[in-house]
Amino acid sequence: MIIVMEENAPEEQIVSVVDRLVGLGFDIHRSTGTRYTILGAVGARTVDTRLLELLEGVSKVVRITSPYKLAARAFKPEGTRIHLRDIVIGGENLVLMAGPGVVESRDQIETIASALARIGVKVLRGGAFRSSGDPYGFQGLGEEGLKLLREAADRHGCCTVSEITEASQIPLFGRYIDLIQVSAGNMQNFMLLKELARTDKPIILTRGPSATIEETLLAADFMMVGGNHRIIICESGIKTLETYTRNTMDLSAIPVIQKLSHLPVIADPSHATGRRDKVPSMARAVAAAGADGMIIDVHHDPEHALCDGAQSLTLEQFEKLAGQLRQIAPAVERKL
Amino acid sequence: MIIVMEENAPEEQIVSVVDRLVGLGFDIHRSTGTRYTILGAVGARTVDTRLLELLEGVSKVVRITSPYKLAARAFKPEGTRIHLRDIVIGGENLVLMAGPGVVESRDQIETIASALARIGVKVLRGGAFRSSGDPYGFQGLGEEGLKLLREAADRHGCCTVSEITEASQIPLFGRYIDLIQVSAGNMQNFMLLKELARTDKPIILTRGPSATIEETLLAADFMMVGGNHRIIICESGIKTLETYTRNTMDLSAIPVIQKLSHLPVIADPSHATGRRDKVPSMARAVAAAGADGMIIDVHHDPEHALCDGAQSLTLEQFEKLAGQLRQIAPAVERKL
Amino acid sequence: MIIVMEENAPEEQIVSVVDRLVGLGFDIHRSTGTRYTILGAVGARTVDTRLLELLEGVSKVVRITSPYKLAARAFKPEGTRIHLRDIVIGGENLVLMAGPGVVESRDQIETIASALARIGVKVLRGGAFRSSGDPYGFQGLGEEGLKLLREAADRHGCCTVSEITEASQIPLFGRYIDLIQVSAGNMQNFMLLKELARTDKPIILTRGPSATIEETLLAADFMMVGGNHRIIICESGIKTLETYTRNTMDLSAIPVIQKLSHLPVIADPSHATGRRDKVPSMARAVAAAGADGMIIDVHHDPEHALCDGAQSLTLEQFEKLAGQLRQIAPAVERKL
Amino acid sequence: MIIVMEENAPEEQIVSVVDRLVGLGFDIHRSTGTRYTILGAVGARTVDTRLLELLEGVSKVVRITSPYKLAARAFKPEGTRIHLRDIVIGGENLVLMAGPGVVESRDQIETIASALARIGVKVLRGGAFRSSGDPYGFQGLGEEGLKLLREAADRHGCCTVSEITEASQIPLFGRYIDLIQVSAGNMQNFMLLKELARTDKPIILTRGPSATIEETLLAADFMMVGGNHRIIICESGIKTLETYTRNTMDLSAIPVIQKLSHLPVIADPSHATGRRDKVPSMARAVAAAGADGMIIDVHHDPEHALCDGAQSLTLEQFEKLAGQLRQIAPAVERKL
Repeated sequence: MIIVMEENAPEEQIVSVVDRLVGLGFDIHRSTGTRYTILGAVGARTVDTRLLELLEGVSKVVRITSPYKLAARAFKPEGTRIHLRDIVIGGENLVLMAGPGVVESRDQIETIASALARIGVKVLRGGAFRSSGDPYGFQGLGEEGLKLLREAADRHGCCTVSEITEASQIPLFGRYIDLIQVSAGNMQNFMLLKELARTDKPIILTRGPSATIEETLLAADFMMVGGNHRIIICESGIKTLETYTRNTMDLSAIPVIQKLSHLPVIADPSHATGRRDKVPSMARAVAAAGADGMIIDVHHDPEHALCDGAQSLTLEQFEKLAGQLRQIAPAVERKL
Repeated sequence: MIIVMEENAPEEQIVSVVDRLVGLGFDIHRSTGTRYTILGAVGARTVDTRLLELLEGVSKVVRITSPYKLAARAFKPEGTRIHLRDIVIGGENLVLMAGPGVVESRDQIETIASALARIGVKVLRGGAFRSSGDPYGFQGLGEEGLKLLREAADRHGCCTVSEITEASQIPLFGRYIDLIQVSAGNMQNFMLLKELARTDKPIILTRGPSATIEETLLAADFMMVGGNHRIIICESGIKTLETYTRNTMDLSAIPVIQKLSHLPVIADPSHATGRRDKVPSMARAVAAAGADGMIIDVHHDPEHALCDGAQSLTLEQFEKLAGQLRQIAPAVERKL
Repeated sequence: MIIVMEENAPEEQIVSVVDRLVGLGFDIHRSTGTRYTILGAVGARTVDTRLLELLEGVSKVVRITSPYKLAARAFKPEGTRIHLRDIVIGGENLVLMAGPGVVESRDQIETIASALARIGVKVLRGGAFRSSGDPYGFQGLGEEGLKLLREAADRHGCCTVSEITEASQIPLFGRYIDLIQVSAGNMQNFMLLKELARTDKPIILTRGPSATIEETLLAADFMMVGGNHRIIICESGIKTLETYTRNTMDLSAIPVIQKLSHLPVIADPSHATGRRDKVPSMARAVAAAGADGMIIDVHHDPEHALCDGAQSLTLEQFEKLAGQLRQIAPAVERKL
Repeated sequence: MIIVMEENAPEEQIVSVVDRLVGLGFDIHRSTGTRYTILGAVGARTVDTRLLELLEGVSKVVRITSPYKLAARAFKPEGTRIHLRDIVIGGENLVLMAGPGVVESRDQIETIASALARIGVKVLRGGAFRSSGDPYGFQGLGEEGLKLLREAADRHGCCTVSEITEASQIPLFGRYIDLIQVSAGNMQNFMLLKELARTDKPIILTRGPSATIEETLLAADFMMVGGNHRIIICESGIKTLETYTRNTMDLSAIPVIQKLSHLPVIADPSHATGRRDKVPSMARAVAAAGADGMIIDVHHDPEHALCDGAQSLTLEQFEKLAGQLRQIAPAVERKL
């Protein structure tokens, strides 16, 4: 930690800050310039830097160490690859995860799964528990939904991914789901993250709508400290002053996270834009930006979907998109 | 709901939209102008307006009805007053709620409570369960913390307020706490809100850091639909491009919520600014803006507080602030 | 314009609003429902809708007509193509505009221009007037810079594009520059836009860092009303809560503007990200999203560039990027 | 400047960064820890820190010195007081500036001025040049407007303040106006600021809608470097995710700027909220937060104002507000 004193701060202020730091257990290296005095503080303890910023004569306090450790690129410079049956996330493949917002029935998920498998999708998504603020909307089929998703996936050789909304659902997810998604709204639900850290399932951690990249990596780190190192970060749009789209997709987060962290990075253009007609262009941009994969809402009949039909591609639209992604992948040295 | 068609939209597009709306169970009033056709759709059902916006020829879709009902001013034009022992929130008093970020010990809470009671505080705050992402920080005393808070409050004739982090804590809060606070991070944790809706305790619902006023009132409405009508809204700062303060306090939310809703409105300048030296000016502004009350972090020894000392006023600072608030209150026809 | 009255608004409030609208010269269509009354107001005049929102009993006021007319897609459904010597912007080509942040010398611009021309660039960019707040930095070569840019472009069969900072520079730009760029900081400098509307040069209008898409199209409309219909919109990043990159590129603005407007859309990944190492992935994303072109800062020796070296690609990096863009273009039915 | 190397950065990377810094003319102090190496770079030159951040092995670069010098509190710890005839801005008075959005006629400004003077206003505001994007709206009376404002002010012993939109208006403002306001939209119009820096008139610099506090102080510094030290900062709201109000007033900017700078700070609740009914509560909050003054739009007949009637208080509303401010002022040790 570095403490920069204000220009020409009087000696008694400097001494007082040094005393405080020593009292907190830090070793101090003092560097006195003609105008600025700078204090380097070395020690094991974490302190609330705001307390130091409030001291008389302190201009700013700078952390040297990254606030996240296990999620930092330096921890695993070669990058993390997550193996899921026969697929690898974080390797040379662009991994497509697709399926309906929620599983509605055996027929619905079978219709979608068979079409997606034919197009080449290896990870089938489908929600079973909803956590929206609409008390009147469809709430999902619960365990039955997870089971139908699993069966459809098995029939077509796919893995499963679904969104978890409460820690109490973990045993059910353990039974049916290969890849557990934490939604944007739960990114900082540390009660849930703590329990997920103890499972042996890989996790998709979705960036919250007002979370910075650093906060997102801190949440990943929190789960890694708890024991689960198989985390995938998912960019899903942030709230901005632009209101035409639901959120603004921060595509630069993809190369930024790839530099700062060793964890795989995917994106969710359906949720980010909230509108079907904007999904294909954003999905192509995700691939071109170099992501490890993406999640796309697809429904065979979006107009009658029980949830999020507006952001779901039809099977035809998805097939066309997959063809475009296949053209783009080689430009970023990916296979599809 | 009003559907505005694009300028000179062809008749077949208009008919197609009408058919769709009729199919959804709406009665349609069509108004054909020289350039614009406007469709009024009347019906009981809620639809995802995005689906209509995606139809060919539709320019925009406007909801007529407020998305929240019970929280709207029209539901109770005279305003809601929440009675808590001998105090009223939402009446003519400016209600001060103060205390430490977390209860640390019997001595600590007693020292603070006795000083605050002397200054005139009637609601004692203190945390017992923390839900931060820091696995190494102090996690709170749990039930023991709630109990110590209750005892200190009883000794000094105060009510208690504390932050809840999980639905499983509700029975404990029922035993010790008069006013349950939902933190900013949990504003859209609908699992928690659903359970709180069933309690008979008044709730302080803190606006999330990236929530709009409308989303905040929707979350309040969600609890009211569930049966709990005693909700207080708390402005606590929103994330903006300004990074000097932790969040930017949106003080205009106070008059805006007072116009849109009948619920009492308070604010939390400690959490919003995150820095002790900015709290007094923002607390005075909260009072001058016309809020029904405020929550302030106060600690007898902030430098050694186990949590959030940087945003806690000393007892002396709080006493001075209370004096200033007493001067300001009459300007907004409030008593303190 | 539609005026939605509050639920059960009393008749005298409704009458009062109607009277006000009639007084303003509007024809009124009143629709009375069991709970809501809705007023349609038809007329030529523009009014400040806030004045109506302030009237007693008014819930909301909705504009029917688009606030921009000439820039709207409906004005020219087939899309605008801008011809510039032998190239077309808004057609089937992905147009690359590249060059240094500022023209530094004859040698510098020649070195860069010859390399770029070889790679296939047809539009050479280079600044000559800077308008930053740094009084000590390099201010550009002024007319000499424009002249050197023109000469280098002519030697290699390129068009020229440069940023204008004041209306007084228009005659100079008329002499040397084919495509005049308005920087993000000047997007709402209406004094400048008014003068540019009178020129016969095509304009690149860069979205301001806190401008919505609607505000951007309004600024374009302002110039079109003034007589210049050859406007290209440039997405260049918006300010958000994310601070790792300078701005957050809003790539969804590309398909959104293509739907709302007939004007060509390009993007500037160099300025948006502010960092060279993030430019290639964002440039690929721009192409994949379907833009009509892009502007890239390129310098043969960015480490010693007099301006914006940090966001400039080397010639080698640009050549590699151009190869990737060539692979991506067919996926969006573009040629490069 | 401090350069923090990545954890365990190899020696050759460190040496390479040192060489680069030495080449740029810096003296280097190297501090080698067990995990982190930190380089202190001392020198007169300003460098683009992004260039250093891009070097291999660099984790972060931190500026030691404030980016603004003359505007910093350290430059004048006792604070700046600006004398304007018989009033002082930055002293113990809360200075009210009030008047119409634009001067419309001799009668209009006289009616307003006489009422305001009676209420105790000492600075009369009124626009004469408008710079909005609406080509059909009232554009202001130009010189005639400034003249009418001056005459009305003189009749009632007031100073004048008006918004400037172009450098070419400076001579006119020199003749009629005591205090020149730079609007939010022009805060980073450095061409205009450069010219204003050469005048002998005090300037109100309005914070831009997406400007940080640091950027605002940098713009003030820019004018001070140019020779004009009489600058007043005006908080006028920033763009946020909240759309109910036009902008979100950042009231914490008032105490923050008072800590960081010696310049007086005022605020403009009319422009920030954009709605008359929100102005009084925000104006009271401005006073309570400790500002040196405020600007309020007032019109004797806002419903028929030619501009910004929706955000203008009536004379009666303003008189009531002034009474409330008089009650609040003593709480912050101000006189009114």
